Amino acid sequence: MSQEKMLVFGHQSPDTDTICSALVYADLKQQQGENVEAVRLGEVGAETQFALDAFSVKAPRFVEKVAPEAKEVILVDHNEKQQSAPDIDDVTVVEVIDHHRIANFETEGPLYYRAEPVGCTATILLKLFKEKDATISKATAGLMLSSIISDSLLFKSPTCTDEDIQAAKELAEIAETDAEQYGLEMLKAGADMSSKSVDELLMLDAKEFTMGDHTVKIAQVNVVDTADVLDRKSEVETAMNEAVKANNYGFFALAVTDILTNNSVLLITGEKAAAAEQAFNVTLDDHQALLEGVVSRKKQIVPPLTNVMIGA
Amino acid sequence: MSQEKMLVFGHQSPDTDTICSALVYADLKQQQGENVEAVRLGEVGAETQFALDAFSVKAPRFVEKVAPEAKEVILVDHNEKQQSAPDIDDVTVVEVIDHHRIANFETEGPLYYRAEPVGCTATILLKLFKEKDATISKATAGLMLSSIISDSLLFKSPTCTDEDIQAAKELAEIAETDAEQYGLEMLKAGADMSSKSVDELLMLDAKEFTMGDHTVKIAQVNVVDTADVLDRKSEVETAMNEAVKANNYGFFALAVTDILTNNSVLLITGEKAAAAEQAFNVTLDDHQALLEGVVSRKKQIVPPLTNVMIGA
Repeated sequence: MSQEKMLVFGHQSPDTDTICSALVYADLKQQQGENVEAVRLGEVGAETQFALDAFSVKAPRFVEKVAPEAKEVILVDHNEKQQSAPDIDDVTVVEVIDHHRIANFETEGPLYYRAEPVGCTATILLKLFKEKDATISKATAGLMLSSIISDSLLFKSPTCTDEDIQAAKELAEIAETDAEQYGLEMLKAGADMSSKSVDELLMLDAKEFTMGDHTVKIAQVNVVDTADVLDRKSEVETAMNEAVKANNYGFFALAVTDILTNNSVLLITGEKAAAAEQAFNVTLDDHQALLEGVVSRKKQIVPPLTNVMIGA
Repeated sequence: MSQEKMLVFGHQSPDTDTICSALVYADLKQQQGENVEAVRLGEVGAETQFALDAFSVKAPRFVEKVAPEAKEVILVDHNEKQQSAPDIDDVTVVEVIDHHRIANFETEGPLYYRAEPVGCTATILLKLFKEKDATISKATAGLMLSSIISDSLLFKSPTCTDEDIQAAKELAEIAETDAEQYGLEMLKAGADMSSKSVDELLMLDAKEFTMGDHTVKIAQVNVVDTADVLDRKSEVETAMNEAVKANNYGFFALAVTDILTNNSVLLITGEKAAAAEQAFNVTLDDHQALLEGVVSRKKQIVPPLTNVMIGA
């Protein structure tokens, strides 16, 4: 193995799984005698900071580019080029640990690639620790537990698998942490939208998708009180309408997900906003509808909207 | 897990690792209660048939297309679309077990992807059997052993890693087989070129590459006696020259690899044939040169030729 330093990092706009998985995998590689440093490509969010503080771990160092520091890199929690470091084409990806689809990813040579269809990268990392017979410290267990809680919204998301739940159980024991109590506090730390501006909350976790002939935008925020957002509904809709106009979106949807009730309030504007009525079998009232039991954009929001838009 | 039948298969123009790994992984999945059948996309070669006969295993069923039979498939020993089933876009790839670079591969959803930079897919499969605590029968061990011997040219190829050697040792014990003696017999079974026509031996394992501004072709055959090919040198060169003209190749190279001495005799024709002199530090004599210790096209032939051609 190379003794030159390798960098390990997750995606841009890092979430808790991306930050923690980079730290945790660096720990595993270091235990195996490899020269690896975890870094991050963006700001640490409030939820992630809560997790780092809880287990007294420093955030990874921020880097804008990776090629000036390393020839070889390891990706966690992502693989698609446009989600990675801006100069990813100038380095060699030697390993990937991920739980997403594979797209827009190509290497010149063989590599170690470990993807599994589970809810969280950390669930795969726990397997790797076991396979390598490596030591799992209390802090490392705490970070992996935090990742699983974050990605699964405390095991409520349909992306959460039995393996994720089982991994969280084992990790909670090592971390000496009550997963339910700690998890709710951590999610709440990241779900305070009252202090965010409208622009901030619309940018927090927003993704563009192509559906049929249209480009659409779907943002999501987690809250403990939907009033944090809905009290500013007209201001939010004005900003969404501006984005629709500027980018010619078919629609702009914002899912305000209540992490206590596991329902989402959907706000949707744009020419194709009515697609939501058919997709979720609801009636929009002033561009708004309650989506009961809907917490996952990937599994519960994007697919039904795509189906309607393709048919439309 | 789905109870509908899944197909598992390797690449077109199947070699021993592709055929055996499909059979072996189907065995593992069946032990886990999954409905999986190994199939193949091309003819079984003489070396592979020797391995199947040695362990009394039937070849996988040949299929032209996969979509009429299955919605979900598992790829072994490849991932690039152009090497796979012609209708691969019409099915969902749910798993990949491979030891090659990743390119021209994309999925809509998350999947299980297991790639490691080792010499042979079967080396990864042995790990999976251990991780799942599955039973390795004598025949399954024999097929995995055959794969490693084939891909590593009896541990002589620079693509062969310590993990491949260690895996082969363990497998030889389970298969109750002397790896060296059996392996040489198996390689010899696939290395009889005297019965092949010139066209056949030039097509057996030929790949096109882009090098700088040129497209080139590099074929390789394994022999126990280079005279099987060199006795027909003028006929071989005529065919190579025709291919160069028809396809506008920068050069056409044929590596005749002696599996007993682990040297290759290179025949090379075309406008850019002189690149071989610089690449291998040899002098071509009537388009021919001895490349001592060269057995791997991927690691020892393509890179030096690419370097010269890019500089040229």
